[in-house]
Amino acid sequence: MSETKENNSCQHGDIKSFTQVANMAANASKPNFGGDEIRIVDAMIDVIYPPVPFPSNKIFKAIGEDRIREMVWHHHRLLAKTKVGNIFPQDEDGFKMAVDKSADLFVEALGGEPIFTKQHGGFHLRMRHFTVPIDESDREIWLAMYKKTLKEISFPKEHLEEFWNWIEALSIRMINRRTTMDGIKRHYWSSVKKELGV
Amino acid sequence: MSETKENNSCQHGDIKSFTQVANMAANASKPNFGGDEIRIVDAMIDVIYPPVPFPSNKIFKAIGEDRIREMVWHHHRLLAKTKVGNIFPQDEDGFKMAVDKSADLFVEALGGEPIFTKQHGGFHLRMRHFTVPIDESDREIWLAMYKKTLKEISFPKEHLEEFWNWIEALSIRMINRRTTMDGIKRHYWSSVKKELGV
Repeated sequence: MSETKENNSCQHGDIKSFTQVANMAANASKPNFGGDEIRIVDAMIDVIYPPVPFPSNKIFKAIGEDRIREMVWHHHRLLAKTKVGNIFPQDEDGFKMAVDKSADLFVEALGGEPIFTKQHGGFHLRMRHFTVPIDESDREIWLAMYKKTLKEISFPKEHLEEFWNWIEALSIRMINRRTTMDGIKRHYWSSVKKELGV
Repeated sequence: MSETKENNSCQHGDIKSFTQVANMAANASKPNFGGDEIRIVDAMIDVIYPPVPFPSNKIFKAIGEDRIREMVWHHHRLLAKTKVGNIFPQDEDGFKMAVDKSADLFVEALGGEPIFTKQHGGFHLRMRHFTVPIDESDREIWLAMYKKTLKEISFPKEHLEEFWNWIEALSIRMINRRTTMDGIKRHYWSSVKKELGV
């Protein structure tokens, strides 16, 4: 099984196919709709959100709170120049609040003080992003800008894999607007590390 | 297992929980993020699209093409007065084309001539709706307006169950914008039939 198929690997009970396209291909030789009998089209799973490996505190110990905050700011300044920038408050103060909140979360997730959860009560990242539509291409841009950020800030090479595996899987959870039958594109470390100089 | 849980019933391999909320509850006693080890947050399935029982030709034989077209028009006139109306072309000609296209599909799906697939090549309903965001509340309105339609056009009672079971499950496939961690609400025939006078 190829890496890109892994996202659609759950089969159980009546679940036989995971995209409508596959479903229709499987039904190609079946009788047409509107025949003498009820015709059941199989259940379908659109997306299996893969496990998310949250990093250990190794990254925090290596680079510390200030550089994590700088990284999050760097990323958001890049995002602001893309269509994903429309998701954020367009005024300077609002944008700063949003980025600082995100930085609080990254600091805490990586092993720093629990500033975020004390103020907001749990990460609940998918839930928090429901207010804005985020589709597959928004995630592609978000990840691409992280790749650029990690190069530009010279993130320590020995911790890149742990960090990348986290954000690559995490970012899938933010998708709340589907625009295609295709599975969510994975960007596995094995295919990314060369580009990051590892 | 209660009826409302049926939508989240696939378990396999690493898939242990199906909403982030359940996921977090399950993790409540685990160590915090950013500890000495990588912490894996479980895979998650957001929506299992249930099987769709496409009707037999009994409905078509009972009411015929013209009354099916009247039903689809009735439904769309009701939809036009709701927020779902914004999905459709706002000019009269565009609206008529959209409703006639939908009527072609209903006629074919229920056992009439394959007018729709000859012109458009397969139903592909989820795919066709990707261009517009459709969230859980849009589906609720779409279904509620069908309930109203079925009452107002005096759809034959003996065929209501077969028709309802189709549109109730089918409508879930159109959802392409998620706005909540809650499972998709089911409107099972058992809870709807009294309202429809059966």
